[in-house]
Amino acid sequence: MTDESGSTWVEVEEGSPFPISNLPYGVFSVDGGPARVGVAIGSSVVDLAALAGTGLLPGLDGAFAQPSLNRFMAHGPRAWAVVRERLATLLRQPQRQAAMARAIHPLDSVRLRLPIEVADFVDFYSSLDHATNMGHMLRPEGPALPPAWRHLPVGYHGRAGTVVVSGAPVQRPWGQIAQGSFGPTAKLDFEAEVGFVVGVGSRRGHPVSAGSLAEHAFGVVLVNDWSARDIQSFEYQPLGPFLGKSFATSISPWVVPLEALRAARVVPPVQDPPPLAYLHDPEPWSLDLTLEVRLNGEVVSRPPFATTYWTPGQHLAHLTANGASLRTGDLLASGTVSGREPGQRGSLMELGWNGTAPLTLADGTTRAWLSDGDTVSIAGWAPGADGTRIGWGEVSGTIHPAHPAPASSGAP
Amino acid sequence: MTDESGSTWVEVEEGSPFPISNLPYGVFSVDGGPARVGVAIGSSVVDLAALAGTGLLPGLDGAFAQPSLNRFMAHGPRAWAVVRERLATLLRQPQRQAAMARAIHPLDSVRLRLPIEVADFVDFYSSLDHATNMGHMLRPEGPALPPAWRHLPVGYHGRAGTVVVSGAPVQRPWGQIAQGSFGPTAKLDFEAEVGFVVGVGSRRGHPVSAGSLAEHAFGVVLVNDWSARDIQSFEYQPLGPFLGKSFATSISPWVVPLEALRAARVVPPVQDPPPLAYLHDPEPWSLDLTLEVRLNGEVVSRPPFATTYWTPGQHLAHLTANGASLRTGDLLASGTVSGREPGQRGSLMELGWNGTAPLTLADGTTRAWLSDGDTVSIAGWAPGADGTRIGWGEVSGTIHPAHPAPASSGAP
Repeated sequence: MTDESGSTWVEVEEGSPFPISNLPYGVFSVDGGPARVGVAIGSSVVDLAALAGTGLLPGLDGAFAQPSLNRFMAHGPRAWAVVRERLATLLRQPQRQAAMARAIHPLDSVRLRLPIEVADFVDFYSSLDHATNMGHMLRPEGPALPPAWRHLPVGYHGRAGTVVVSGAPVQRPWGQIAQGSFGPTAKLDFEAEVGFVVGVGSRRGHPVSAGSLAEHAFGVVLVNDWSARDIQSFEYQPLGPFLGKSFATSISPWVVPLEALRAARVVPPVQDPPPLAYLHDPEPWSLDLTLEVRLNGEVVSRPPFATTYWTPGQHLAHLTANGASLRTGDLLASGTVSGREPGQRGSLMELGWNGTAPLTLADGTTRAWLSDGDTVSIAGWAPGADGTRIGWGEVSGTIHPAHPAPASSGAP
Repeated sequence: MTDESGSTWVEVEEGSPFPISNLPYGVFSVDGGPARVGVAIGSSVVDLAALAGTGLLPGLDGAFAQPSLNRFMAHGPRAWAVVRERLATLLRQPQRQAAMARAIHPLDSVRLRLPIEVADFVDFYSSLDHATNMGHMLRPEGPALPPAWRHLPVGYHGRAGTVVVSGAPVQRPWGQIAQGSFGPTAKLDFEAEVGFVVGVGSRRGHPVSAGSLAEHAFGVVLVNDWSARDIQSFEYQPLGPFLGKSFATSISPWVVPLEALRAARVVPPVQDPPPLAYLHDPEPWSLDLTLEVRLNGEVVSRPPFATTYWTPGQHLAHLTANGASLRTGDLLASGTVSGREPGQRGSLMELGWNGTAPLTLADGTTRAWLSDGDTVSIAGWAPGADGTRIGWGEVSGTIHPAHPAPASSGAP
């Protein structure tokens, strides 16, 4: 266990998302140089490849001189613990400052890259309030929840190749928005989610139990699963969302290690009916993680992850119950996180009730759906060790206008 | 263009799927040695890494000494053409035989591996007869086709991490097969499909037209998308198939290059209504590719790929119409291929009409669904240059019994 107490010689501003109790991992480059693994502290980034080069950190076969965290993540929980502990020690010993100076960069001087090479991207639908809201809006005549919803964590595979890092532009997608109508989406939305990143894979045919989450999951990212509601609505029967989601999914550049979130563990909501044995976790936990969604700088929602019905451990158990294997880099996202209160809804579709009650922003403009030029930023906060606060920074994206015409062959 | 005429000094048996007009690519290893790229001809495998090592083939930066075709595929159509032409020339010149002897192995002496590292796996639903059959069985009270079916190629993302090579065992999966019931699937099925493999990726935000298929697609594999119909039926609303499919998808070890299938191009079915402009292809084509499904050695179906409603080019155009990018290794499968005749249905669900009309096999046993120990093998044949026949060999898998109990935590 890392000793979280004590201070660091790196300057950490009051309210920074990156106290020494956090030490999130990311991938960065400086001045067009090669990508390497870094850790954020205060408003600095520590270059782990440089530290390994000087012998201050174990090198792990070059795992830090990589364009993604995957090589490091594949080393497993023992290596994660050793590196985290060693790094925390170095950052607490003032005599290390001189030797480490060249391995530390101002955060605002580096380019943050996509931190993981995404293997499979699975998105769940695990917020009861979100699923209920969507059901009321889309299927007002029937029951709000789909038939299996309380019996298993409903989920599906998303497109791994279009997972992008915070800051990447999000271009308004074209699509079939109604029969015979192909055009830019008129119902562009965000979805505030929490994603667990798999570090250690598993073998095909060997299900992983809910209680084994910490043996496989490396850390947590914030996710914005951009959605085009009109495209999705036209296409989704019977195989589920496809082009309405696959144009972009943004994640935070920083992956907060599971270990940094120990103090944030909370008992999840009671499940009714009780889950089947394969979804049972003898010590179930969720995270006291509050998201904060800003639209053009203005807070529009604060979704509480702790109220999510299905837990991260259950996501893992369900995903592998049929013998499906895990790989390093798998991303398991929660689905939109919504709380019970209107101010806790994690999508614009819910906040504006499917366009019928548009949001009014501080500048007097209204939003039923996202406009070109809008910026959506999602931050997240969780309690850390010793009364600190753990943050992710944010996952942010700005809507760029649709391209003028699709690259069709020009014919009818 | 490769000159397809002339014979080869390698022995090619009458009826071999691998005449010199084919030259499919795969990945193999010998006696536990390193995996490398090979090409099948007759009952032999040509080791391209060895040929590149002797200077007989361009080395392409070590692209052939790799555990997957991805590095080679990423080089693009010019490199594919050069290698194919050079290889065909070498295999026609008897004076090369001595120099190439050490690069040629008997096919039955090598271990064939998964040929590609799958990036994203997309499965479509593009056979009109299959979609109609499924609709009649599953939604007898409503219209057979889903609302968008004739307007766009319906598709979804499958699990890339559980795509396995022919011969890999397929264990009967557990899952929720009804409310409160978790057990081994009782409705295990196969799906005979055709998959296109992406060699050259594309940029996010830049749709690819249907007519550009040959600039991106490297070749074609046979696919068996194993399905657990009871798990799928309980889980699929509203996000589509998930655990009912994700336990295994088998593909053929051989990827037949698009160039080898030139003589197999045929005009696809007329589409009504005419497709929107973004799905228009000025010179649309499909393949005269007949699948042959064997259950324990007995032919049970011959699905004709040429009747598939949506074309491979349209799959590509639709997938990227919203700006989604392609990556080397993307696998775009057709969905189950079924023809109009009962003997052309590509799944056991259709052949046995959802269990109501079980197949009777030659040994007198019946099959509503697959039994433990059953072997399903799918072969494929297409016309090649100069009257030859192009084959894939087969994609095969044997059903292993479910594991005795899931790895749950043991509690209720």
